[in-house]
Amino acid sequence: MEISKSTLLELHDKIRPFIHRTAVLTSELLNEISGTELYFKCENFQKTGAFKMRGASSAILNLTEEQLAQGVITHSSGNFAQAVALAAKKMGIKAYIVMPSSAPKVKQRAVINYGGEVTICPPTIEDREATSNKIIEHTQANFLHPSNDIHVILGQATAAIELLEEQPDLDYVLVPVGGGGLLAGTSLAVHFFANDCVTLGTEPMEADDAYHSLLNGRIEKNKTADTIADGLRTHLGDINFPIIQEHVQAILRVDEENIIAAMRLIWERMKILIEPSSAVPFAAVLTHKDLFENKKVGIILSGGNVELSNLPF
Amino acid sequence: MEISKSTLLELHDKIRPFIHRTAVLTSELLNEISGTELYFKCENFQKTGAFKMRGASSAILNLTEEQLAQGVITHSSGNFAQAVALAAKKMGIKAYIVMPSSAPKVKQRAVINYGGEVTICPPTIEDREATSNKIIEHTQANFLHPSNDIHVILGQATAAIELLEEQPDLDYVLVPVGGGGLLAGTSLAVHFFANDCVTLGTEPMEADDAYHSLLNGRIEKNKTADTIADGLRTHLGDINFPIIQEHVQAILRVDEENIIAAMRLIWERMKILIEPSSAVPFAAVLTHKDLFENKKVGIILSGGNVELSNLPF
Repeated sequence: MEISKSTLLELHDKIRPFIHRTAVLTSELLNEISGTELYFKCENFQKTGAFKMRGASSAILNLTEEQLAQGVITHSSGNFAQAVALAAKKMGIKAYIVMPSSAPKVKQRAVINYGGEVTICPPTIEDREATSNKIIEHTQANFLHPSNDIHVILGQATAAIELLEEQPDLDYVLVPVGGGGLLAGTSLAVHFFANDCVTLGTEPMEADDAYHSLLNGRIEKNKTADTIADGLRTHLGDINFPIIQEHVQAILRVDEENIIAAMRLIWERMKILIEPSSAVPFAAVLTHKDLFENKKVGIILSGGNVELSNLPF
Repeated sequence: MEISKSTLLELHDKIRPFIHRTAVLTSELLNEISGTELYFKCENFQKTGAFKMRGASSAILNLTEEQLAQGVITHSSGNFAQAVALAAKKMGIKAYIVMPSSAPKVKQRAVINYGGEVTICPPTIEDREATSNKIIEHTQANFLHPSNDIHVILGQATAAIELLEEQPDLDYVLVPVGGGGLLAGTSLAVHFFANDCVTLGTEPMEADDAYHSLLNGRIEKNKTADTIADGLRTHLGDINFPIIQEHVQAILRVDEENIIAAMRLIWERMKILIEPSSAVPFAAVLTHKDLFENKKVGIILSGGNVELSNLPF
C-alpha cells in the first residue's frame, strides 16, 4: 500500500465522526521543571479514554459491506477492546472481544457498556489466540490486530497530525511504544507533516523490546515485562517494524520509579488522569534533560484508563 | 460599594494577567447519565488549582501602595493560602500564611513553593485567629478573608462571567458553598450577565449551614462538619450573606456517598482530577434529576487539589 500525505488526510476526514479532536495542553510548571517547552496531546480525553479509538475506527471503515455483516473480533486486555466495541457500536456491527481474566475490571465493564460481546480467557497470549480462533470459526468475524495492521497504524497517525496542525514547529514528538502502532503512525505523521522534527519511542527499561529490536534490526521479544506501564508489555509486528526502522530515530528507556514520578507530576500539576503508559514519554524527558533543553517537545498522552482503586501513589 | 455590570467587567480585565481563562468541558456520557446538558467550568485547571486565585488577585489589587508594602496575611487550610501566596509573589509583595497543622501536606508544600511564609498552628479557628493577630501586630500585614470580603467575592464572580460568555443561555448555574464567596460572586455574575438563569448553592448534608441560613434568614453555623468535602466546612459571612439572600434561589444538599460517587464519575469519565468539594454540584444534579431534566446546567468545578495518597476510592 502506497502511503502519502493525502492518504493520511483522507483517512483523517473519514474517521472524524468517530473521534474527538482532543485538546493540546501546556503547563508552565512542567515546562519549568523540565527546562523544555512541552505540548501534551490529550488522548486521555479521546472517546473510550485512549488513542486506540482512532485506529479501531480506521480499520473497521476499511472493511467491505460483506465483512461488516460478519462483525469484528479482537483480543485485548484493555484500550483496544473498548475502542473496537465502541467503534463497532457506532457503525452498527457486532464486536466480539476476548479479554484475559487479568484485564482491569474497569476496562471489562467499559467494553460491556459499549455493547461488546465479551469472552474471558486465561491470561496468556496462547489462550487469547485460541479463544479468538474458536469464535472466528463459528462467526467468520474479522480479526482486528491492535497494532500490526496498516489501517490501524494510519488511524493512530491522526493524533500527531492534529498536534502538528496546532504546533507545526516541534523539535521532537515522543510517544510510548508497546505493540508499535502508535509509534509507527506517529512517525509517518511527523515524516509527512513536519520539518526537522524527530520521532522518538519511549518504553520502560523493564519491557525494552523495541529498544533491542531497533538496535538488532529484528523484532525482539521482552525478557521481562514487570512494569507498571501495562499497555507497553507487547512486542512489535512485521507491519509496523519496517516503518519504525525507517522513521524513528531512537527508543529511550526509563525506570519504573521515574514513570511513577512522572505520572504523579502530571496528575498533581495538570489535574488530569493519565494511565502509567502515558507517563513514559514525560519520564523520558525528565531522564534525558540535556537532550530536550529549550526544545519544543510534543508528547502524546496515550490514555487515561486507570483503575482508581489500584494507584501507585 | 455600588456594584454594576461594569464593576465586574473592569475587575475581570484587571485580574486577567494573574489568572488562566479555564476551559469549559462537556461529557456525552455524563449528559446521558444525568439526562441534562452539562457545562463544566474547569477551575481545577486554574493557577494554584482552584478558583481562589481570582478572589485573591482581586483583593490584593485593591490595596494601596502603602498597604502593599506591608504585605498580606491570611489563615487557610488550603486553596486560599496557595492563591494568596502566588498572587502576592506575582505582585512582588510579602505573604504570611497561617495554616492549621491538619492542612494537607500537598497544600503546605505548594504554599512554600509559591514563596509564602508559612506558620503552622493548632487546627482550631481560635488558634488560627490568634496566630494571625500576633503576626499582624508585628508586621502590620493586611488581613485577607477567603470569602467574606467584597473584593474577593467580585473576583470569584469572574469564573461564572467566563462561563456565561461561552454559554449565555444556561438555565442553572450550580456551585459548592463553603464560606460563601464563590456562591455570592457567581450569583452576581448570573444576575448581571444571564437571562432567566437561576443560581443554586450546593452543600453536603453534613455541613448544611448555608441551607439553614437561607431558610432562617440569619447566618447559622454547622452543627456537624463530618464531610469529605473539606472545603465546605466553613460558614457564611455578613458581607456575602445578603448577596446570597438576594440572588440565590436555593441550597441543595447531598449525601456523602453521592459526593464520592459523583467525584468518581467525573474522574473516570472526564479524566480530570477534582477535589471532593467540586463534586458536590454534580452530586446535586444526580440527586435531583427531575429538576434538571433536559436543562442546560453550568457547574463550576471549583478545584483540583487532592492528596493522591488519601483518596476515597
